[in-house]
Amino acid sequence: MRPSGREPSQMRAVTIERNAAMKAEGSCLVAFGDTKVLCTASVETTVPGWLRGKGKGWVTAEYGMLPRATGTRTRREAASGRQSGRTQEIQRLIGRSLRAVVDLEALGEVQITLDCDVLEADGGTRTAAITGAYVALADAIGWMEARQLTRGKVLRDSVAAISCGIYRGTPVLDLDYLEDVEAETDANFVMTGSGKFVEIQGTAEGAPFDRAELNSLMGLAEQGIGELTLMQKSALGA
Amino acid sequence: MRPSGREPSQMRAVTIERNAAMKAEGSCLVAFGDTKVLCTASVETTVPGWLRGKGKGWVTAEYGMLPRATGTRTRREAASGRQSGRTQEIQRLIGRSLRAVVDLEALGEVQITLDCDVLEADGGTRTAAITGAYVALADAIGWMEARQLTRGKVLRDSVAAISCGIYRGTPVLDLDYLEDVEAETDANFVMTGSGKFVEIQGTAEGAPFDRAELNSLMGLAEQGIGELTLMQKSALGA
Amino acid sequence: MRPSGREPSQMRAVTIERNAAMKAEGSCLVAFGDTKVLCTASVETTVPGWLRGKGKGWVTAEYGMLPRATGTRTRREAASGRQSGRTQEIQRLIGRSLRAVVDLEALGEVQITLDCDVLEADGGTRTAAITGAYVALADAIGWMEARQLTRGKVLRDSVAAISCGIYRGTPVLDLDYLEDVEAETDANFVMTGSGKFVEIQGTAEGAPFDRAELNSLMGLAEQGIGELTLMQKSALGA
Amino acid sequence: MRPSGREPSQMRAVTIERNAAMKAEGSCLVAFGDTKVLCTASVETTVPGWLRGKGKGWVTAEYGMLPRATGTRTRREAASGRQSGRTQEIQRLIGRSLRAVVDLEALGEVQITLDCDVLEADGGTRTAAITGAYVALADAIGWMEARQLTRGKVLRDSVAAISCGIYRGTPVLDLDYLEDVEAETDANFVMTGSGKFVEIQGTAEGAPFDRAELNSLMGLAEQGIGELTLMQKSALGA
Amino acid sequence: MRPSGREPSQMRAVTIERNAAMKAEGSCLVAFGDTKVLCTASVETTVPGWLRGKGKGWVTAEYGMLPRATGTRTRREAASGRQSGRTQEIQRLIGRSLRAVVDLEALGEVQITLDCDVLEADGGTRTAAITGAYVALADAIGWMEARQLTRGKVLRDSVAAISCGIYRGTPVLDLDYLEDVEAETDANFVMTGSGKFVEIQGTAEGAPFDRAELNSLMGLAEQGIGELTLMQKSALGA
Amino acid sequence: MRPSGREPSQMRAVTIERNAAMKAEGSCLVAFGDTKVLCTASVETTVPGWLRGKGKGWVTAEYGMLPRATGTRTRREAASGRQSGRTQEIQRLIGRSLRAVVDLEALGEVQITLDCDVLEADGGTRTAAITGAYVALADAIGWMEARQLTRGKVLRDSVAAISCGIYRGTPVLDLDYLEDVEAETDANFVMTGSGKFVEIQGTAEGAPFDRAELNSLMGLAEQGIGELTLMQKSALGA
Repeated sequence: MRPSGREPSQMRAVTIERNAAMKAEGSCLVAFGDTKVLCTASVETTVPGWLRGKGKGWVTAEYGMLPRATGTRTRREAASGRQSGRTQEIQRLIGRSLRAVVDLEALGEVQITLDCDVLEADGGTRTAAITGAYVALADAIGWMEARQLTRGKVLRDSVAAISCGIYRGTPVLDLDYLEDVEAETDANFVMTGSGKFVEIQGTAEGAPFDRAELNSLMGLAEQGIGELTLMQKSALGA
Repeated sequence: MRPSGREPSQMRAVTIERNAAMKAEGSCLVAFGDTKVLCTASVETTVPGWLRGKGKGWVTAEYGMLPRATGTRTRREAASGRQSGRTQEIQRLIGRSLRAVVDLEALGEVQITLDCDVLEADGGTRTAAITGAYVALADAIGWMEARQLTRGKVLRDSVAAISCGIYRGTPVLDLDYLEDVEAETDANFVMTGSGKFVEIQGTAEGAPFDRAELNSLMGLAEQGIGELTLMQKSALGA
Repeated sequence: MRPSGREPSQMRAVTIERNAAMKAEGSCLVAFGDTKVLCTASVETTVPGWLRGKGKGWVTAEYGMLPRATGTRTRREAASGRQSGRTQEIQRLIGRSLRAVVDLEALGEVQITLDCDVLEADGGTRTAAITGAYVALADAIGWMEARQLTRGKVLRDSVAAISCGIYRGTPVLDLDYLEDVEAETDANFVMTGSGKFVEIQGTAEGAPFDRAELNSLMGLAEQGIGELTLMQKSALGA
Repeated sequence: MRPSGREPSQMRAVTIERNAAMKAEGSCLVAFGDTKVLCTASVETTVPGWLRGKGKGWVTAEYGMLPRATGTRTRREAASGRQSGRTQEIQRLIGRSLRAVVDLEALGEVQITLDCDVLEADGGTRTAAITGAYVALADAIGWMEARQLTRGKVLRDSVAAISCGIYRGTPVLDLDYLEDVEAETDANFVMTGSGKFVEIQGTAEGAPFDRAELNSLMGLAEQGIGELTLMQKSALGA
Repeated sequence: MRPSGREPSQMRAVTIERNAAMKAEGSCLVAFGDTKVLCTASVETTVPGWLRGKGKGWVTAEYGMLPRATGTRTRREAASGRQSGRTQEIQRLIGRSLRAVVDLEALGEVQITLDCDVLEADGGTRTAAITGAYVALADAIGWMEARQLTRGKVLRDSVAAISCGIYRGTPVLDLDYLEDVEAETDANFVMTGSGKFVEIQGTAEGAPFDRAELNSLMGLAEQGIGELTLMQKSALGA
Repeated sequence: MRPSGREPSQMRAVTIERNAAMKAEGSCLVAFGDTKVLCTASVETTVPGWLRGKGKGWVTAEYGMLPRATGTRTRREAASGRQSGRTQEIQRLIGRSLRAVVDLEALGEVQITLDCDVLEADGGTRTAAITGAYVALADAIGWMEARQLTRGKVLRDSVAAISCGIYRGTPVLDLDYLEDVEAETDANFVMTGSGKFVEIQGTAEGAPFDRAELNSLMGLAEQGIGELTLMQKSALGA
């Protein structure tokens, strides 16, 4: 039995609210149950130094968590003077995931930065962030297209992410915080709308896992990504 | 004429939405027009080293701004590795303002941290933060009282803040961003519900100002703080 | 009774010794009683990036305190790796105060940095720093004029600063350290030689204050600034 | 054709030289072809604060690269003042991988730190590091056992790691640098000696991959880990 | 010919003004010509962690330079967030030099920190700092003795420092800035009042030097230290 | 008696193994007994800003120590976020020592960085580093000459370094760690192949020393440098 009473293959309620930040070129507030992430996409005309003059753009991400998104207050990274290893790992993952569906040449010499800030955390913040960041990115590219700033089709596919895990011996989809701290195995899947893998990260938190278990998790992930892809499409009105 | 069409003594629409963060002991989302600040109050049982064993508590604040709260993206302070002088100035001001109405001995050996994170910025973020932080603080103290964790009445008064300025020669209340960048004089007032001053910060951005002008600004501030105090009371159901 | 035996409206002995640093374009050693601040003005031909090519200059300030300016040793900020919030707040105030009397276009594309280093601290270091920094700045501009490096009259007025406070119920002028730690209200006033306000910062350290109290402090400040302005003029031989 | 002329399922020459650092409780120099990593294990009697008094130990890792391990000089992280996101990601992975086979209660209140310093880099530094770190760890535990410092069997299994990828359309084992920069998909597998998964990290660098491709990579990984496990055993003389 | 017109073995005018900082337990303002260093000694009852409970004290030093001590403004180390290698080298040298004449057991569990802040720099700041720091230290120990806080005689000898160099082929004593930048060889000598060496640092800035040259420099240093020792004694009224 | 049983004037076994890092333009692994330092020379085409366009090159050095080069683990400087004062002092010394024998104009606008990383530490790491760095530098310059990238003869002489000290009253050559911690006086000598001094650093760790003692140390150093110079020549096949 899952603490939330969900079925093993049941995701939490997911909502995607577009235009959540008035000033950004694209934005959304994404919720996976009680996990809430504000995603904004900022279009800037300066690319990183090593890309300058190459006719290509860049997509990157930053991740943060408000101090009281968590059950007890977490120290503010700006105050401690450095981003934790976990933060850096997550923001690198978000950036890689989005770049997998972007044609950087069609983007032109432009950088889009996705800021994913967790307002409330209840497990799965990185998967919610990727799923929401895609919507914010799509809106920012729409904003660019409306101004004829792109050089052809920028988005080759959509991208979303979901976690799966083995909780008390059973493979389950979309772990919440209570499940996450106790799961034997925890895996994050980033997949395209067309059902291919962009990134898999599976970790044995307790006992190592075998191929059969990994296969069950992959099956759950494929189902979950399918549902998220529909929600992204619906949010984007496509 | 104000860019927003407001009267000189007219504040922006102010809303205070309590319990905006599920996990905090107190919280609210405060809006002064398009400026939106999420304020959370965290009760912790460790006080700063220099207060330990003295039977007194502490109230402190941290302030942050999401990178895309602003018209163009602002660099994330966690990424740059330091909080700006402006950030530190504001969070010191918020902490001082709240401590002015708190009986630290009645609080007991407890620290309450107010996190004020700006989701959208349109001028007046520090005054909105103080006004909202008071509500979050009051809720956190209510939470403590319900658990009999206080030693008597903690809050001696309420506190709120408002900006005033001289815009194109006219004293106006509650500057928005467009007014703020152009105002000759900019002043922030922190006042108690009973109408006394906790902090005044007046700055001549353009021409220096005289006592008569300062007096007009004080009059506007008294009126604005009166309105904010009513809204705080109403939000707190008192 | 004030600890020093001074009358409520009596400032400490103020001295301004010009040319206190051989190598700076302008400098002075300013003393407000036992508070001593060395102020130097450095003329540099590089302006901040955002001002480049705009035909305007900049005036900025840095503030520091020698570790043993205080009764017990204070940690060296260079060793701790960051400037405190208090330091940043003060140096931003000094810069703003000086810019209020400078015509940045007449200055030309030049940056003047005022370094205010506290050799001995006995309360009022920021007000002494502003008062002395103006003299160092005036000398640096004189140095530029002698070399025909300015584009017209740079200084529109003089500027000085003084603290006032309510000490044991009485409004007093120019608080020393003993008064400062005990004052109910502490206010710093930055004013021009012509008697207008550039900056007011009033803080209730104990009980909140009312308009009548603030008015008494303003009266004292006007008197004190008047005296300081005469001393600045006399020091500058004008 | 692979640049090195290897068969798709052929690993590079792997050597493990024990006792490569005279002063460490355990150490080895591991080479995967031209990639060389010095791994040392340090036994210390202080555990992290959050573990103190719980009767359990900890295993952690740090990773570094000498500036000229690479084809062009890489900036020294000690000089730049921060460890990169990549470094933190790798050292977290090494620590997690080792802890998966360690009984932290049997270890007792002791921390073992694995330092993995890359002397030469030619792709696969993190997999070589994990494979070598296990040997250093086993030696450090042997050192503890010889002094009767453990509380029963500490190592539950062995652990090793290997990379696989899709290079020019073909799944290959143990990518070197030339293959790594060009591979469409790059995956790192951490597995136990008994053939179970501890961690899987698969990334589409170019085109997203499908389940069939992932299955080929898993097959290669199982074979490679089998070979590495034999080499670890042989090095440890077991 | 030396730029200053001095004879090769002629030091600059040296002055030592005791009690230059009102609040420190010992202090002096030392000048070697136009080089001026404010030295303060602070007695604190906490020793470094590794000395705690060992019945011994510690003497350490910190060094700083005001931004405009130099001909062009030097960046403030507190603002850049780190002390330069040069600063650290100098403050380590000052600490070592003073500890060479201190009986740390007689000092008791006390730390004395010498802060040496350069107000004006014209070459030889580290030698002036050591020479002045000794006087401040002696005064602080006198202050402790007057309160019976020491355990016997703390100072075993006096210590002073001087630079020598080969300038345009001639060995000269006490280089000023103009000589320093041009000298082929530059050496700093730290010696006790009884004429023994505590530290020698000789550097070939241009051509390497031979033993004969080093011997001439040692001769000059012995003479200079003799003169400085007399001045220290005279300042201390001994 | 020396702990190692060596004669007072006997150095440890010294070995210099060239081409120890495959990718560097020059490199060697130098051992002074159990002290082992990997030295690499990297040729880069960007010089420091202040040298740009002056037709001259630069030689600089960085120094590091692997955490477990020492008997107990030393904290990794990349993790603590700053290089210690000791590290900075040593890397400045290595750079100065090498520049003393380099014609920077013949080098052309090129920077050579010597990275000296201590793999095992048993005293004398800085002297081994200088001695080995010279060999790496010579190889890098050979590499440049083979590509006709220099403008004439770059190396004016060779350079090597050795420590001497007074150990239990006897002057000895090349201190190992056990001697180093106990020596009364410790001196490092950097000398050219032609027998001249580049740098002398002598420190009284216990009792101050006199000229006679310094002379004995110099005699030992001259002998030791003579031996090292022959080994460098032999390693370089010259």
